[in-house]
Amino acid sequence: MAKINSNYGHLAANYLFPEISGRVAAYQAQHPNVRILRLGIGDTTEPLTAAVLDGIRTRVDQLSRRDTYRGYGDSEGELALRRAIVDSYAERGASIEPDEVFVSDGAKPDSGNIQSIFSPDAIVAVQDPAYPVYVDTNVIAGRAGRFDPATGGHDRIVYMPCTEENLFFPAIPKQKVDLVYLCSPNNPTGMAASREQLEGFVHYARQERAVIIYDAAYAAFIRDPALPRSIYEIEGARECAIEIQSLSKSAGFTGVRLGWSVVPKSLVVEDGGPGALTRLWSRRQNTFFNGASNLAQAGALAALGPEGRAESRKVVDYYLDNAALVRRTLTEMGMVCFGGLNAPYVWARVPRTMKSWDFFDLLLEQAHVVGTPGSGFGPSGEGYFRLSAFGHREDIQLAVDSIRTNLKLG
Amino acid sequence: MAKINSNYGHLAANYLFPEISGRVAAYQAQHPNVRILRLGIGDTTEPLTAAVLDGIRTRVDQLSRRDTYRGYGDSEGELALRRAIVDSYAERGASIEPDEVFVSDGAKPDSGNIQSIFSPDAIVAVQDPAYPVYVDTNVIAGRAGRFDPATGGHDRIVYMPCTEENLFFPAIPKQKVDLVYLCSPNNPTGMAASREQLEGFVHYARQERAVIIYDAAYAAFIRDPALPRSIYEIEGARECAIEIQSLSKSAGFTGVRLGWSVVPKSLVVEDGGPGALTRLWSRRQNTFFNGASNLAQAGALAALGPEGRAESRKVVDYYLDNAALVRRTLTEMGMVCFGGLNAPYVWARVPRTMKSWDFFDLLLEQAHVVGTPGSGFGPSGEGYFRLSAFGHREDIQLAVDSIRTNLKLG
Repeated sequence: MAKINSNYGHLAANYLFPEISGRVAAYQAQHPNVRILRLGIGDTTEPLTAAVLDGIRTRVDQLSRRDTYRGYGDSEGELALRRAIVDSYAERGASIEPDEVFVSDGAKPDSGNIQSIFSPDAIVAVQDPAYPVYVDTNVIAGRAGRFDPATGGHDRIVYMPCTEENLFFPAIPKQKVDLVYLCSPNNPTGMAASREQLEGFVHYARQERAVIIYDAAYAAFIRDPALPRSIYEIEGARECAIEIQSLSKSAGFTGVRLGWSVVPKSLVVEDGGPGALTRLWSRRQNTFFNGASNLAQAGALAALGPEGRAESRKVVDYYLDNAALVRRTLTEMGMVCFGGLNAPYVWARVPRTMKSWDFFDLLLEQAHVVGTPGSGFGPSGEGYFRLSAFGHREDIQLAVDSIRTNLKLG
Repeated sequence: MAKINSNYGHLAANYLFPEISGRVAAYQAQHPNVRILRLGIGDTTEPLTAAVLDGIRTRVDQLSRRDTYRGYGDSEGELALRRAIVDSYAERGASIEPDEVFVSDGAKPDSGNIQSIFSPDAIVAVQDPAYPVYVDTNVIAGRAGRFDPATGGHDRIVYMPCTEENLFFPAIPKQKVDLVYLCSPNNPTGMAASREQLEGFVHYARQERAVIIYDAAYAAFIRDPALPRSIYEIEGARECAIEIQSLSKSAGFTGVRLGWSVVPKSLVVEDGGPGALTRLWSRRQNTFFNGASNLAQAGALAALGPEGRAESRKVVDYYLDNAALVRRTLTEMGMVCFGGLNAPYVWARVPRTMKSWDFFDLLLEQAHVVGTPGSGFGPSGEGYFRLSAFGHREDIQLAVDSIRTNLKLG
């Protein structure tokens, strides 16, 4: 008699995005002539670039002829692509090898699946607020314990608050933890970690033999040369950190799907010798996965070439200009803003009299702009609000004009 | 201090394909001028068809323009594609709905991940021999117990032998089981289940409230109109069966990557009301997955259109003609063969004096042909050998000519 995995019952009812959709739909129904401006979701809007299109089209042509058609590739990804990834790290002084790179269909699957190679009783620490996938996948795996509506968190997860006081980068946990999820620039706060901040966590992880899961999906938005883009720019990170990357936001691959994980052979765990985690992840991927689409891989190889990277940089600049526009507008209106300089998200403090959801309603009703309430990303997100800079410039302009003209902060 | 998931230690050392590669490489090194003919792996060799190429190219063009570019899609897949899938089932008298269809990047990920929505202590039954992913993913999830080298199996898995006596379709298990993996036509035996055989399992599953995981990845190869292509052609299957499908073999998508699972809302489990498993799988996919590549989805929609299906049928016919050629040759040489009529695999009995691996060596040395030893697919595969019909016709012809001329069965 089949039974379900009861861990699903411990998931926090994740009503964030459905709740947003519901409120927006209700408002639109009452105000059918209003044009709603959406700065809610971090979804790319600008087309694939010329080099990427070229790479994909060439691959489609190859798949059309019997002499150049190819079927299954390595589940780890095409070697040329893994080498291009290694080269892109080398330029930043980060040394990794092709057999430590595992190409995938995106950072979300990787950041969800990576926990599965670790012990079911591992203690997990996450930034608060953070991308909900880190917690939810550990809930499903049985590591999170019970959800407590009073705290807004799970009782076996170690939440590391990211607040104005610490400029949204957490202190090192006081208790012992086994897995530490870090994201930089962080979604939703849009704040990038400094070299010193990462050094602190690398030091801690090496000392405790913890493993850092470092989500660098937004690294391409880092423009400050002093800020690391990869954790492997930090000495010792190869002994304690797995890094997850993506072309979703930098090359417009949100729908095309391509990312990768780096699992260094020098990683240290308590009960496995050198290379243990690399072998385990290889085994995991070979058992559950058959490789990213070869069309996406062809596009990715092109995106990592010289033309592709120059083109991607321009698209990222475009979104960063959007972010600057949003941040400038809100700041000029007297709102306190964080992020948005080395990231596509602006993290705004909502007026002290309001909760995140109050501000959501106000912004929708007065300015017809949709954003994301910070409380949806974790307990410490309460009192803040995320605005996404992904969008056509003219739409972002309409949104900020409407905010400036119509939003009354009281 | 991070520890690894110790369940990985219970995996049978899966040396099948590495062992094959090793033996082939060693032989090639000793005989550098020999051309080795490969009938080992089930990988497609014929190009994508015109309709599919057209579908993909149109999508690439859309992604090149800012007015038609699209980013994230629904993790369940594009609605038009899910509707086309529903229509393809309706033609076979199988009634499913679009919100029961979950598009993915292939049958391998789905058949690996589906176990995760069930209780960790579920009792799992598999056909023996079978596609190794069913057992391996349950080993990693902790359901399989210990591997016993003496039996070649895991002590908590219920193996359902597929033998000459039962024409390679198993008897219903005598003990109670919770999950039953069935694959038809089965890989590696190439034998398709009859309506009566499936009715027996559906009856059993409904009675025991077990869930059947039905892998139909090779269904397009079924040409006998009396044989079901979908388990939903069987009455009552909507209450007890999940079906997994793929375009890999039928439309040449082994590298492009596209499959789907059907999780009916009428499925019954002990501890969940109507729709519980559908909701759980939706939640699983939304948490761990961000949708199949939109390029692959565009190709899939074209593959399921009238032109696409007519073209795919011709490609499948081509591989079936290959299979007939292999089967005929071996039969004329006095070997006993199964499968290969409604499937791309021929399952040959090796001479009684030999083990599967002995025959592998003999075939390689005498005929320079690579196949797959049956013992690699489970204990009951011993004494058999799988030959794949995927290949260019001229290569298959060379292989069978060489077998006919050079193989001495003693």
